[in-house]
Amino acid sequence: MKAILITIGNEVLNGQVVDTNAAWLAQELLAEGIPVIEKWSVSDDIQAIVQALQQASDKGDIILTTGGLGPTADDLTSEAFAQFMKIPRIFHAPTYAKIEILFNQLGRSPSDSHLEQARLPEGVDVIPNTAGTAPGMHFLYQGKHFIAMPGVPFEMKAIFDPHVKSLLRSVNSGPTRFSHTFYTVGEGETFLEDLIKDITRKASANIGFAFLPDLYKVRIRVDLDSNSKEDYDHWTAIINQIRDRLGKYRVGEGDLTLEKAIAQILTRKGWMMGTAESCTGGHIAHQVTSNAGASDYFKGSIIAYHNQLKVKYLGVNQTTLDSFGAVSEETVKEMALGALDALNTEVAVAVTGIAGPDGGSVDKPVGTVWICVALKSGKLKTKKLQLRRDRLLNIRASSTMALIMLYGILMDE
Amino acid sequence: MKAILITIGNEVLNGQVVDTNAAWLAQELLAEGIPVIEKWSVSDDIQAIVQALQQASDKGDIILTTGGLGPTADDLTSEAFAQFMKIPRIFHAPTYAKIEILFNQLGRSPSDSHLEQARLPEGVDVIPNTAGTAPGMHFLYQGKHFIAMPGVPFEMKAIFDPHVKSLLRSVNSGPTRFSHTFYTVGEGETFLEDLIKDITRKASANIGFAFLPDLYKVRIRVDLDSNSKEDYDHWTAIINQIRDRLGKYRVGEGDLTLEKAIAQILTRKGWMMGTAESCTGGHIAHQVTSNAGASDYFKGSIIAYHNQLKVKYLGVNQTTLDSFGAVSEETVKEMALGALDALNTEVAVAVTGIAGPDGGSVDKPVGTVWICVALKSGKLKTKKLQLRRDRLLNIRASSTMALIMLYGILMDE
Repeated sequence: MKAILITIGNEVLNGQVVDTNAAWLAQELLAEGIPVIEKWSVSDDIQAIVQALQQASDKGDIILTTGGLGPTADDLTSEAFAQFMKIPRIFHAPTYAKIEILFNQLGRSPSDSHLEQARLPEGVDVIPNTAGTAPGMHFLYQGKHFIAMPGVPFEMKAIFDPHVKSLLRSVNSGPTRFSHTFYTVGEGETFLEDLIKDITRKASANIGFAFLPDLYKVRIRVDLDSNSKEDYDHWTAIINQIRDRLGKYRVGEGDLTLEKAIAQILTRKGWMMGTAESCTGGHIAHQVTSNAGASDYFKGSIIAYHNQLKVKYLGVNQTTLDSFGAVSEETVKEMALGALDALNTEVAVAVTGIAGPDGGSVDKPVGTVWICVALKSGKLKTKKLQLRRDRLLNIRASSTMALIMLYGILMDE
Repeated sequence: MKAILITIGNEVLNGQVVDTNAAWLAQELLAEGIPVIEKWSVSDDIQAIVQALQQASDKGDIILTTGGLGPTADDLTSEAFAQFMKIPRIFHAPTYAKIEILFNQLGRSPSDSHLEQARLPEGVDVIPNTAGTAPGMHFLYQGKHFIAMPGVPFEMKAIFDPHVKSLLRSVNSGPTRFSHTFYTVGEGETFLEDLIKDITRKASANIGFAFLPDLYKVRIRVDLDSNSKEDYDHWTAIINQIRDRLGKYRVGEGDLTLEKAIAQILTRKGWMMGTAESCTGGHIAHQVTSNAGASDYFKGSIIAYHNQLKVKYLGVNQTTLDSFGAVSEETVKEMALGALDALNTEVAVAVTGIAGPDGGSVDKPVGTVWICVALKSGKLKTKKLQLRRDRLLNIRASSTMALIMLYGILMDE
């Protein structure tokens, strides 16, 4: 079975909202063996929604929509579904009762717009929403499954798991798409494609390869579209060959991202890490602590945005700052060594730089970044990056390179 | 003129990549007065791309694609464009020369796949890419403008600005869409819709309203589709009325987000801020320092993930930790007061909690979070959140609420 995702709402089309729902849903669907073949965003416009539903039902088996189920006047999904199926909307008492209870708990009453929100296409299956007022909907029409979910991410997730998931399991005839990902660092996509070319060439036609570069990293994805055991075994063999060939460029695979690979090594060694951050402003710490269980190997950070704090907490010498500047190899080394001491950890990562878009000089233009990774044992590595003027990109790139260097030094130990 | 965005690549459809390009492009296009009416993602499949180009040209005036221009075998955009326009691809010497120079700088040679990458549809306008090897393309076909850009965000941005932007300015007949956004906190979307209902009701039909909730915040968007001066004045008047009506719920508008509003107040007062973070792991510091110029009002942070650091750097009493636990009002207060002192700032924000998905107890389930905002003057506010089990969502929600509380206390001063 193949899915099409439709995101409903002007906010996605005018760029105010980054559509994270679609990526999350696509991963969940793939895990159920259902590939998403297309993904569309349409505006808060009845005709646009109805047309998208019709076109989607020509292409996919399962059509999932997010958004447009709220109580305000720009929420038109329910009405669009009714028009699409040519059935009337009627008052759905259980939905309204749920809204009423939710409001009563807050000591308030629902408004007229909630009466409108509780008018649903007649005969539709209502999917309970435990996280908000907007009900989910499911119906079978012209042999295709249509599922409507709210656009607010945590409400969508609360409806998807477990309700939509179990629904999909009951209608899906079995997995048709398998996917495996390798995470690599150190070389570009062309090099990697050449490196494994002889393996990819002899793969059967229902196996697809993709090379996805992003900030010093390349992901390699190996997809299989098939239900046969024989194809599955062939796909597994190809994956094993690629793993061997990638060698040192492979930092992780499957669920094991770079961050998780670092977590695994630190936990195995029983080591703790910490960070000393200037221009990355806490982003490295955030990336590390986004991983569940980070407290097993992450102790904390000193975000020393101002030089005062670099001296006070990281023991950077004022003379070093005066002679070489805050953005220098000398300073970043002292920051990393100071962090080992201040945080009492086995490993420390330090970054200092000019994130931009302003603040550069002729000697040190915007985008100049120094990174240092230091071990308690005395081992230490530094690196200079020369990035561009995009502040957020510079913060992300510096953090990523710092983690790649951390991984490298840990692997050498 | 109306635009359609097409994202090309399996990685978006299987959820490995969150499509941030589309949101960025949509904002840039809107700033040029060009609304995006639909946004599609299609797979790395020639037929799917060709079909999408055809359907897009039926609906939009400008069709922008991202992705599929790289050198690897899954990059099919150039070939799809050639098939769509029924013209051959030919070797484009300047593109290959550029690739060669880039590789020579790295002391390497291009591979065969770069020869393939330099084969472009005959007669197409090549848009120079200063950030990578994948060339952008522009052509006019069946009266519509087609623009192909790389999928890697910084390459796409380098091609868009200035090249695509100036192209759009030369072909666009003038703005047709204006958009204004209010940022609010403190009440939900239904309340806000009711609050301004009499204003929205008397607005003309070419003005649209949207209410967009997200983690304690609601954005209200007011769109105008028109070229007339009279409509524009009416739209401006509506916006002014809404601003007055929103009163205390409005924290910012236009480019002035909550983070920027905080920056503005701190700068005006000449105050510095800092954070003391446990479960948010640096995310508040990251949000604050994502703003250009943050060094004017942000001094730094102590990320005290482990209790050891809470005692050592924030002066939290061991007896407080023993009696009330790390996740308690008592601890978060001491963290905030300790941060004021340690970082020597006028304002400090502290957060401690259980981000999950594990680690809770009966008394303090996963999602329990305490926040404190303290001023040097002695003023102090605390708040408890009871969130759910989604780690990243809990980190984001706690950070957002901390910033909302910070804004609140600053406004009261």
